[in-house]
Amino acid sequence: MPHIAIQPEMAPGTPGLFQYRPETGRPLAELAETLLRNPHSMSRADRELIATYVSALNESKFCYSTHREVSGAQYDEGRLLVDKVMNDPDSAPIPEKLKKLLKIAGAVQRSGNAVTEELVTDARNAGATDVEIHDTVLIAAAFCMFNRYCDGLGAYTPEDPEAYVGMAEMILNGGYRMCVTGH
Amino acid sequence: MPHIAIQPEMAPGTPGLFQYRPETGRPLAELAETLLRNPHSMSRADRELIATYVSALNESKFCYSTHREVSGAQYDEGRLLVDKVMNDPDSAPIPEKLKKLLKIAGAVQRSGNAVTEELVTDARNAGATDVEIHDTVLIAAAFCMFNRYCDGLGAYTPEDPEAYVGMAEMILNGGYRMCVTGH
Repeated sequence: MPHIAIQPEMAPGTPGLFQYRPETGRPLAELAETLLRNPHSMSRADRELIATYVSALNESKFCYSTHREVSGAQYDEGRLLVDKVMNDPDSAPIPEKLKKLLKIAGAVQRSGNAVTEELVTDARNAGATDVEIHDTVLIAAAFCMFNRYCDGLGAYTPEDPEAYVGMAEMILNGGYRMCVTGH
Repeated sequence: MPHIAIQPEMAPGTPGLFQYRPETGRPLAELAETLLRNPHSMSRADRELIATYVSALNESKFCYSTHREVSGAQYDEGRLLVDKVMNDPDSAPIPEKLKKLLKIAGAVQRSGNAVTEELVTDARNAGATDVEIHDTVLIAAAFCMFNRYCDGLGAYTPEDPEAYVGMAEMILNGGYRMCVTGH
């Protein structure tokens, strides 16, 4: 049960919190839209994969279940590929550059101070640009926020896996800004 | 040294990162302005104190040093009070409600899942409202992001304590939105 009086007609998880307090929901949704969906050299699927990976490390069920579906829906191999990466990024069939960026994201999840020059050099040697490194760090950092926000307030987290498929469809069709208004 | 090519004319720390990538800097600055400076039942000093506390737990030197000055400048007792709270929140001369909210912030810093019903009930029994509990969780979560963002990219972190006094003056006078434009 949520720790604060979220109205039952509001969405579950983080979107419900955006609707509870739109003043903060608006910049949070804008941040998610910019990081995960704006035109970029990294695909939307890959950026959502980084979000899913950090949410898994933070044991954040709502965020993990939602972004797993959003990422999976945008890969030819579907969520099976996402699950392979969650299970073991090193052996998963993804490009070397993405593996190195996931290493950076994993360090950020532990602490900003855990990101070493070596991790950054490895990513750069695998072809990562400055903006890709910047956005990987910020996506990972942002999900350390979103995960804590959602779980710290005990936001409603559906048990039914189908609920996350529906949530992902809404995000894929309408983006993150509509999480604030609910339509 | 920063992990990415931040131009020397940009500001140090997180504001320098906002200027490097204004697309994400704008919603991040908007979030900070809304959480820390918008009209609220909690004083700006108290909200900055929560940000400082979380930054200390995350060992984030730039954020800690900056928000310590911003918080301290808004208390009659100055930064001495902030330092007492950082040293031991339980014995510091602050109201019981703020102590309970700091307990919630400390739990959020570890994990969203560490916030228990008991911590929330304690805060409510000390007089905290739903919005105060919500904003405490989100301030703590947001600083788990800002700290990781700043340190994960190795943003420039001045050694001179006077630099943070100057940064705090800019924030106190101009707010967080001007961190993106630099004026």
